[in-house]
Parts: sequence; C-alpha cells; structure tokens
Amino acid sequence: MAAQLRSWNDTPTRQAIVAFVERVTTEGGPDYVPPSERITTFDNDGTLWCEKPMPIELGFILLRLAEMAEADASLREKQPWKAAREKDFHWLGEVITKHYHGDDTDVKVLMAGILQAFAGQSVDEYAAAADGFLRGGKHPTLARTFHACGYLPMIELLQYLEAYGFTNYIASGGDRDFMRPITEEIYGIPSERVIGSSNALCYLDDEHGGTITYAAEPDVFDDGPTKPIRIWSRIGRRPIVAGGNSNGDIPMLRYAGGKGRLALRLLVLHDDAEREFDYKTGAEESLEAAATHGWTVVSIKNDWSTVFS
Amino acid sequence: MAAQLRSWNDTPTRQAIVAFVERVTTEGGPDYVPPSERITTFDNDGTLWCEKPMPIELGFILLRLAEMAEADASLREKQPWKAAREKDFHWLGEVITKHYHGDDTDVKVLMAGILQAFAGQSVDEYAAAADGFLRGGKHPTLARTFHACGYLPMIELLQYLEAYGFTNYIASGGDRDFMRPITEEIYGIPSERVIGSSNALCYLDDEHGGTITYAAEPDVFDDGPTKPIRIWSRIGRRPIVAGGNSNGDIPMLRYAGGKGRLALRLLVLHDDAEREFDYKTGAEESLEAAATHGWTVVSIKNDWSTVFS
Repeated sequence: MAAQLRSWNDTPTRQAIVAFVERVTTEGGPDYVPPSERITTFDNDGTLWCEKPMPIELGFILLRLAEMAEADASLREKQPWKAAREKDFHWLGEVITKHYHGDDTDVKVLMAGILQAFAGQSVDEYAAAADGFLRGGKHPTLARTFHACGYLPMIELLQYLEAYGFTNYIASGGDRDFMRPITEEIYGIPSERVIGSSNALCYLDDEHGGTITYAAEPDVFDDGPTKPIRIWSRIGRRPIVAGGNSNGDIPMLRYAGGKGRLALRLLVLHDDAEREFDYKTGAEESLEAAATHGWTVVSIKNDWSTVFS
Repeated sequence: MAAQLRSWNDTPTRQAIVAFVERVTTEGGPDYVPPSERITTFDNDGTLWCEKPMPIELGFILLRLAEMAEADASLREKQPWKAAREKDFHWLGEVITKHYHGDDTDVKVLMAGILQAFAGQSVDEYAAAADGFLRGGKHPTLARTFHACGYLPMIELLQYLEAYGFTNYIASGGDRDFMRPITEEIYGIPSERVIGSSNALCYLDDEHGGTITYAAEPDVFDDGPTKPIRIWSRIGRRPIVAGGNSNGDIPMLRYAGGKGRLALRLLVLHDDAEREFDYKTGAEESLEAAATHGWTVVSIKNDWSTVFS
C-alpha cells in the first residue's frame, strides 16, 4: 500500500512514514496500536494546503469586509475594512506574522471585524458562501482554484493512513466552518472530523426547526496549547500521528503518542520557491523543536516529486 | 431488521419508528436520506439510562465531595460538601428539579463544588475513576450496577438504527467525560460521538507529551438551546432522529429534521413505577410540546416489554 505515496520521493522522510505505519499496524509486534486508537490530527493551512501569500480564508473574509465598506462609508477608514477595501495585503499579511511572534494586537482588530462580518448569518448561508468561494475563487499566484490548493503528497498520505485503519482529523487554527464544505471532497475527512477555530453560535427557534447563526463573539481560537485541548475534547483520545508546519502546532505535535507509545510527528518545511513558497517565518521554534526532539521534517523541495495535482 | 426491536411491544410507537426508518432509507422514495445524513442524537440521563432517584453522575460527584469534606473540616458546613457528607439526597434532588423549573441558584452552588472537586485532575485519572464507579457501583434501588442501567429497548433502537446506516450520537446535559469510558460498551457509541457538558481544560507540557487536566472553570452546560448548538458544532449536520425526556431536550427535538425533511422525535415518558420510575417533573413542557407538534411519546409502561437487560 506504500505505492499510494507516489508523489513522495524515496527519501528518509518517506521511509520514516512507512516504517512507523508498519510498526504500529503489525499485530503481535511491540508497538502495535489497535485501529480504534490510530488517530491522526493534521493542521490545515500550510500543512494540507497552501497558506501564502495569505491564508485562503482571509481572502474570503476580505471580500465580505470590502462589501461591507462599499455599503457603509463610515467603515472605510477603520481597520480591517480599510485594508480589505484598499487591498492592503501588507497590513493583512503582517497580522499573521505578528501573531506567530506573539503579538496579537492586530489579530484582535481583525477578529473584531470578522465577528461583525458574519454576525447574524446562519451556518447554512455561511457554508454555501464558503463553498462557492473555494470552488470558484482562483489562487492569486498558483493558477489554480483554491479547491485545488491541497498538497497531493499529503492527500496521498491521508489515504494511505486510512487504508491502514487510521482515522484522520483536521485540527486547524483556521475557521472550522470555512473548511467543512470541502474537506470530505479534498481530503476524505467529513465535517464531524474537522476541528478548528469558531465563533459563538445562537440557536433561534422558528417554524422549520430553528436556525443556528453566528453571534458577534469569538468562541475558540484553536492554536497553540488549545489544539491538544480541542483534540481531546472532540475525540476523547490522544493521536499517534500529528502533522503541522508552524509554531502554533508545537503543543499538538508534543501531545501525539503519550507515555510509552510510538508517535509520528511531521513538520512541513516550505523550502520550494519554485513550485510553492519558501518561508520559515512563524515556523522558527517548531523547526528548532523538530531538531531537538527528532521530529520528521517534510521538505517540500526534496521529499515531494509533485506538489499539486 | 425490525426484529431487532424485540423489547418493544407492537404499539403505534414501535410502528412509527419502523415506518420512519423505512421511509428515509427507501432509495428513490420521496423521503430518502443518504447514509451520511442519517444522524441521530440522544439525550442520556432519563433517555438511554435511568436518572432516578438522582442522576448517576451525581453519585460519583458526591463520593468525591464527601472524601474532600472528610479530609478538610472547613468544608463540612458548606454546600455542596455538607449535603454530600450527610447524604442529604433531598437537597441534591431539588437542585435538578429547581433547574427544570428555571431556578439555577443551587445548580451554581453545586457546579462550584464540582469544579473544585476535579480541578487539577488529569482527564485520564478522571476517566479511570468514572469507569471504576460505573462498573463497580450499585444503583440504590434497582439491584444492578450502574453499568447495567441502560434501557434495553433504547439499546436495541440504537443497534437497529445503526443497521440501517444511521450514525448515533449522545447529546447529554451530563458530563461528557463521565460517560465516555462506557458508552461504546453499553450503546456502541464511541467517545468521539459523545457530546455533553464539560469543564474547561488546561494543557501542561511534560516529558511524556503533556497532560490535559481540568481547570476550576466551567466550559459548556449542554442543555436547552445549547444542545443544537453543540450538535452542530461537533457534527456539522442537523440530525433527523432525536430522543429526549425533559424540558431541556425541547430545542434539540425541535432542531431535528429541518425545512422539508422528515424527522423522528422521541420523548421517553417515565410512567412505570413498578419496573423503573413514575415522574413528570422537569418534563411538563416537553410533554406539552410533544402533544402540540405530534412528537412520538415512548411510554415505558406500554411500549416496552422489557426495561433492563
């Protein structure tokens, strides 16, 4: 079944993945893990699909914020509406970079805007809009729809793990409800296995059984130490495979395995300016942790023969 | 496969269940629902297992509070430690009754005690203690372990639904982590499909990949309108079957189905003093709603030939 990993070069990284899967699935072996405990958790942005020049979700939010600023002049000099309307990608890109360095001032400004952007919308309306954006919208530099921005080797890895009895989850800092409409089609991961950030919700009864809508309040920002907490809350088990690409994934990667159990910890390194992007910003500490603890670093340049389908 | 419902008498209730399942699973029929959307959500206390003379979880909590009061004299005159130590079941029973009537004063006192009772404990320690209690502890009046307090007809119903391609979830006001150790064995529902109330959690890193422990803060009280919100948050779909037994289940029962989709809404009526219990307290409004909206009321006395295995 390792033949499924056809977009992976035959490097030590691929060998480490195959060796791990064989060890934990060999019945009677010292590292055997029963199928019900073969849980995997993968970050999404930068791990399963690309996140540059800015996270895909941000493009969706900006469209909505720009629409709001068109409709209401009083928003045009306020962030984040100003940046959205003027397509000030620098301000927006810096929000994420600053967050990775521990400064959440602008994240709060952006989040406040996002909360207002979707407040009152029903989860069904939001899902339909996100789905339309992901299928129709084009990536600004990669000449493909957002729907086709998943990394082929990672999609193959998810299929390979599933074939060996693993159950895959997404544990992303991105918005849970933004990803859900398309995760089954792209990754084979259904909505109930998507964990992510979320806004608070309201339930309003009506003659059709009620509607769930977004409140103008944050709920969970699923990053850093919140990742293992949300994983445990949702699954009730500790994963044995975890994949990430940034500092915010360190606690999730640490959490994989647990006392006396083997774990596979994958850290995707963006080092391929030609086929994808080349950056380490926001990943510095996770790369250090990988070196210290012997995690498996996945080099896009060296380990993947193909990046996108 | 309806033969699986062997502890159900051949009444209109059983007929309604069988007719619903046939309608939504008949391919090409007007009410057909594909397997991925055959989601069911069931309350636990009073719906899948018995909740009298007091919720099973409360017994577990009282043991822990009594231990604390033994160890620390300063707690002995304070509620809820006083009631726990003196086995004042009246005070405790009234907490739930008052909650059902909209008065949460004592719920807050009890919750504050519970938060202190488990703060700092790891989720693994808590799970082991809950598991031991449920397997070893005896129900005060029913002459059986708590583990054997599940209603046999409901267990058969879950199996029957599963055989028809439904995916069953628990959506309980009770503590998620208290139920998880035993839901797979009793109901065939694994931990990732248990939704319930929960305390806030902390992640503490250590040399074994870190531990998740309870904080002395509440997180979610999964009752009333919070039930549909938590169901949607966890599953990303609207159920088509919902089962409950109390006022707190009304929003979940309303939420089932949705515009233009058939739903089965079951309300368990406790009317069998001989074999289980006879009470309507806390269910008054849900019984009215059942009458108004034509929900299927399950009479323990009339619809079930056997109550427990």
